[in-house]
Amino acid sequence: MGNGGCSGMETLRVFCDVQASDDLLDLLRCGIAPHVLLTPQGAATSVLADVPTDPLLQEADIAFGQPQAADVLSAPRLKWLQVSSAGYTRYDTKDFRNQAVAKGLAVTNSSHVYDQACAEHALSFLFAQARLLPESLTSMAANGDDEWLSLRGRSVLLQGQSVLLLGYGEIAKRMLPMLQALQMDVTGYRRSPRGDEGIPMVGAADLSAALASADHVVNILPENPDSRSFCDAAFFSKMKPGSVFYNIGRGATVDQTALHEALMQRHLQAAWLDVTSPEPLPGDHPLRELSNCHITPHVAGGFTLETRVLIEHFLKNFRRYLEAQPLANRVIY
Amino acid sequence: MGNGGCSGMETLRVFCDVQASDDLLDLLRCGIAPHVLLTPQGAATSVLADVPTDPLLQEADIAFGQPQAADVLSAPRLKWLQVSSAGYTRYDTKDFRNQAVAKGLAVTNSSHVYDQACAEHALSFLFAQARLLPESLTSMAANGDDEWLSLRGRSVLLQGQSVLLLGYGEIAKRMLPMLQALQMDVTGYRRSPRGDEGIPMVGAADLSAALASADHVVNILPENPDSRSFCDAAFFSKMKPGSVFYNIGRGATVDQTALHEALMQRHLQAAWLDVTSPEPLPGDHPLRELSNCHITPHVAGGFTLETRVLIEHFLKNFRRYLEAQPLANRVIY
Repeated sequence: MGNGGCSGMETLRVFCDVQASDDLLDLLRCGIAPHVLLTPQGAATSVLADVPTDPLLQEADIAFGQPQAADVLSAPRLKWLQVSSAGYTRYDTKDFRNQAVAKGLAVTNSSHVYDQACAEHALSFLFAQARLLPESLTSMAANGDDEWLSLRGRSVLLQGQSVLLLGYGEIAKRMLPMLQALQMDVTGYRRSPRGDEGIPMVGAADLSAALASADHVVNILPENPDSRSFCDAAFFSKMKPGSVFYNIGRGATVDQTALHEALMQRHLQAAWLDVTSPEPLPGDHPLRELSNCHITPHVAGGFTLETRVLIEHFLKNFRRYLEAQPLANRVIY
Repeated sequence: MGNGGCSGMETLRVFCDVQASDDLLDLLRCGIAPHVLLTPQGAATSVLADVPTDPLLQEADIAFGQPQAADVLSAPRLKWLQVSSAGYTRYDTKDFRNQAVAKGLAVTNSSHVYDQACAEHALSFLFAQARLLPESLTSMAANGDDEWLSLRGRSVLLQGQSVLLLGYGEIAKRMLPMLQALQMDVTGYRRSPRGDEGIPMVGAADLSAALASADHVVNILPENPDSRSFCDAAFFSKMKPGSVFYNIGRGATVDQTALHEALMQRHLQAAWLDVTSPEPLPGDHPLRELSNCHITPHVAGGFTLETRVLIEHFLKNFRRYLEAQPLANRVIY
């Protein structure tokens, strides 16, 4: 484990740049006492936003939030970083990984905090597409008229349709009971299926066939060198005509030019994206011109009490750290 | 049962005013052969739209569609009417009921055709509200800015929230597995709970308490003299502050002036309506001015292949009729 630094009576210094109310920072402060909380002036809110370098980090034993990678590596006492998001692109480089391992730094993320909200956001996209909500919420069609018949006739039952989950981690697992309750036909994709997933899985060799038969493809891939532009022109061309693409993972896993083309040609019926590249996608980006491309601004993981749950999640891991138990959600060993 | 008229070799005449493609009418024609299909010029599409009187109905043994109530009652040979919708307001009067019973007319509806689509439409509303889709689909918030933090912070997890289903028929039963997969706390309301519903039920005496504790109230009541304006000012005042109201039943069960007031005051967080009174709701109706009132134009039951399933549903019942078996979805005995 290499937790280190948690022996005996030593007072630990916990650096936290999570943006939180005073009440919640008090919750954190009391939760770690008698250990000490260090809070900088400028708080981070997102792994995707830049944060200023803060000298306090250099005094910390533990960091919780989104500090700059270079500052993390140069902090002489730092033994553990808990990233306050699910994604950890900023730290997911070979160089960072090697240096972290060399200095005995444990890195965990907060993915479980956001799993359920992400799963529910993905479901909201599936349902909104099936029921054509963007169109029907603005329609004043009268019972029996052509527009009404068209809206009803183009709505679909999710029941019995097929869905391919790209990436089979915790978000996919949270989606599964709901998809099964809908009696959808669920397949998962991961590079190397383990065989213990409990649903039909495909690996790289079978992906093309799975894409050709899925009514819905939900991209939940994390961003890393292997996943960048994973969904490219060849990928979209293999998807079933009229099928729907969803992305609640990371924007960089999609070749947006290829996606635009597939939507323009109506090879794909629609796309629903919570993540794009860049974020926010500029107002004049070609994807924004398409009536069949629906975009939310990277809010899938959000929910009331999110910051409270985030802090409680850290405190649970902090107790594990003090007791030299294995940390939860570890992403770098 | 009083099916009557189906003995021996007699050729039955089946009147159908359902709007369908030639292919689907052929499916119906072949399905009932050697019995005969009578199709009028003007086809009905909705129980809510007026249809012309058609003299062909007067020759029919069986009617399938939405004929005028007076024409049904005056048709001398008619033994069975299958209404091509879930609602049957047009026929749900004491006078029609008495005359139908007196002349030995069986009346069935097509509710099971629309149950799953209605259930999925209701779920689409719950998810769209939880994820604030009307707002987030038009937002270009940047990670970390105030609008972004607000959107994320006002999104909610359905998981763990409570939902009250007003009316516990087939649509509610279809919703149940999905609500349970979401780990929502589900309660049902019906005037007289039977005790075999499999979920906690309340009757009239306990409705106020149930309204006071539900995060979501889904109205699936049919329209009849008892249900008209069931959701009135007193009803909304009993709902929990900040809760959300949904209607996928019938517009007339809601006092829209009272709903408007509850939404204006933000006593209710939002309303999602697939049905209104009248339909479509005029463009200048006060409910349309509210950003927290979301309206679809009575499309909840619609889905691709709806007319095919409707006809197949009739054909199944037609075989029951020929074999003098009890008819499915009977609504008047």
